[in-house]
Amino acid sequence: MIGASTLPLAATPAFTTGAPQLRGTGDLGIVIERATGSVLIVDTTKHERIARVEGFGDISHASAVFSRDERFAYVFGRDGGLTKLDILTAEVVARKVQSGNAIGGAISDDGTLVAVSNYEPGGVKVFDAETLELVADMETGSKTIGLVDVPGRRFVFSTWEAGETWIADFSKGPAPVVTKIEEIGANPYDALVTADGRHYIAGLFGEDGLAHVDLWENPLKARKILAGYGRGEAPLPVYKMPHLEGWAKASETFYLPAIGRHGVLIVDDRSFEEVGRIPLLGQPVFAMSRPDGRQVFVNFAPPDNRFVQVIDTPSRKVVATLEPGPGVLHMEFAPRGHEVWMSVRDENELQVWDTAKLEKISSLPAEKPSGIFFTVRAHKTGL
Amino acid sequence: MIGASTLPLAATPAFTTGAPQLRGTGDLGIVIERATGSVLIVDTTKHERIARVEGFGDISHASAVFSRDERFAYVFGRDGGLTKLDILTAEVVARKVQSGNAIGGAISDDGTLVAVSNYEPGGVKVFDAETLELVADMETGSKTIGLVDVPGRRFVFSTWEAGETWIADFSKGPAPVVTKIEEIGANPYDALVTADGRHYIAGLFGEDGLAHVDLWENPLKARKILAGYGRGEAPLPVYKMPHLEGWAKASETFYLPAIGRHGVLIVDDRSFEEVGRIPLLGQPVFAMSRPDGRQVFVNFAPPDNRFVQVIDTPSRKVVATLEPGPGVLHMEFAPRGHEVWMSVRDENELQVWDTAKLEKISSLPAEKPSGIFFTVRAHKTGL
Repeated sequence: MIGASTLPLAATPAFTTGAPQLRGTGDLGIVIERATGSVLIVDTTKHERIARVEGFGDISHASAVFSRDERFAYVFGRDGGLTKLDILTAEVVARKVQSGNAIGGAISDDGTLVAVSNYEPGGVKVFDAETLELVADMETGSKTIGLVDVPGRRFVFSTWEAGETWIADFSKGPAPVVTKIEEIGANPYDALVTADGRHYIAGLFGEDGLAHVDLWENPLKARKILAGYGRGEAPLPVYKMPHLEGWAKASETFYLPAIGRHGVLIVDDRSFEEVGRIPLLGQPVFAMSRPDGRQVFVNFAPPDNRFVQVIDTPSRKVVATLEPGPGVLHMEFAPRGHEVWMSVRDENELQVWDTAKLEKISSLPAEKPSGIFFTVRAHKTGL
Repeated sequence: MIGASTLPLAATPAFTTGAPQLRGTGDLGIVIERATGSVLIVDTTKHERIARVEGFGDISHASAVFSRDERFAYVFGRDGGLTKLDILTAEVVARKVQSGNAIGGAISDDGTLVAVSNYEPGGVKVFDAETLELVADMETGSKTIGLVDVPGRRFVFSTWEAGETWIADFSKGPAPVVTKIEEIGANPYDALVTADGRHYIAGLFGEDGLAHVDLWENPLKARKILAGYGRGEAPLPVYKMPHLEGWAKASETFYLPAIGRHGVLIVDDRSFEEVGRIPLLGQPVFAMSRPDGRQVFVNFAPPDNRFVQVIDTPSRKVVATLEPGPGVLHMEFAPRGHEVWMSVRDENELQVWDTAKLEKISSLPAEKPSGIFFTVRAHKTGL
């Protein structure tokens, strides 16, 4: 087992293509280079790398959100680091290590607050998006997961040990008004909110099914949905817990990775009941819909993570099995879906595919790329 | 009646706030100043005017789309003018008067083609988005209306005299492959496509009801929906034909202006059948949903065009009647819906309202403002 781990890391020099240019930011994106703690800035129109920026700490499990002007990325590292990157100048303009271990963040609908969900020591911290000064420190006595923004300057998250969902409302100022929903289920491990900010759904590690909260209801309550989902009877080994944020919305249904199984579930978007299943070649990690919902792209856990399968949603059939290469970790669609970018970690490569022809049209070098995040996310709820 | 019409137009000097600045473009927008043929560039974060640019011709009925980098606006004038505006430098970088009378346009999903729908001499012209060079001239022998972009480098539009819907597919190159759907109904006057690019719906001037095409079906066909909608029995006088693009999507329903009546229809998003009506104070022009669908804002035809009513969609009740002032012509929501901008023509004013508190928080001077268009539109299908 002498091998990769004893080799020196490939050199990953920072670079930029020159002085900052006057340019629109709607077609930019960033790519996490997980092994080297660096971030690539990319131009999604020209399929080019603009710059590499270093100094993000441990980003082996990182995510990002964007300022509402689409100029700044906020990168959430696993080590509790919160880093503000200016994607026009390719400079880190602010950085805070705000906890010992963090699991992602969100930005408020008005773009003024950035929230981070922490494992160690737990809780959620909220920062001024401009300066990264601390605005609020919400202690929960519990690891927090599934942090999302919803309309009305609110954040929603759940607590692992306590099994609660909290809604923190910052509309009145820096001291949040918190509403707690108790006993949503045992050990929520991840959550999502639908694109309209209405339905908050948490996966449960400690029991079958998922917890669902309709945030438009009053009073708020959690109910159990998809009772057969999750741990189920005689589950297969789970190689990699699917991200719930990988639910795909397509017309009147959702497509969900079936945990520990070789397939996706199709769930009605009104009843939240299963209405079908589609067998796939391996254990799905992300099921991601093209923005128009006409296709769903699925990547897989090892040993099948060199493949991507494409589902045509009207016919509910797999219409293509692509083989980008070993270690397809993440995918991101162009805002209107004509192209999709993929991180192929073990090839040190980003690939751009045409979603109509299902052909690879471009590839770019990258060091162990993982998450890909385009600036269009600035305009979306619940990411 | 000596009065406003004999007064000289207020001076509307071009202005900018200085040299072009390195900045993100995700929070910018433009506002049509209809009387003076000028366009304001605005910053939606700071609620400021950045520049006024002149030379757009007759923009008394204008619309706009944006390049995928959110740097350039394409403004479609009534006089057939197509003008490309650099919103970072506040300069017109290209302009073509491409017909005698035009009615709007669209940009392809990949951002490379701009299409314009013409009344005089009819047809649709397609231009290179970079240079505005003519790429294709689709003669229809008919006025064209309801032009929208859909995924796959396609445009969809309908023909007034012939009553057809055309799907023009540019995915193979500059010569489009055209599919025609015949006999969709008499005299389509406007159309929309749903945000996922799937359902194309055309209003019919010559008969009751609307024509619906499911663009995911094969073969394509038109069917009639909402038979009681439109001209109806004993219609009230129609002061201003509602824009179909003003359909609001809210959770599992659409909200439609009821033509010639004081109310909106609620339509199920699966069956396209009416499931309710909400009475309002006047004849609606636009029913626009906050991006999360929780609220629908409605403005009105004269004599009620000083008001805006706000519908809470879960309860289907009017929860507020706002009075921005005389001549509320258009509204545009911030991408995640925390604010809405309104054009109040006869006050020469733009107003910014907080959608949670339903309070006016800012106002800016503008010369007879009408359409407001934010750069987030670059990332949306079917506008």
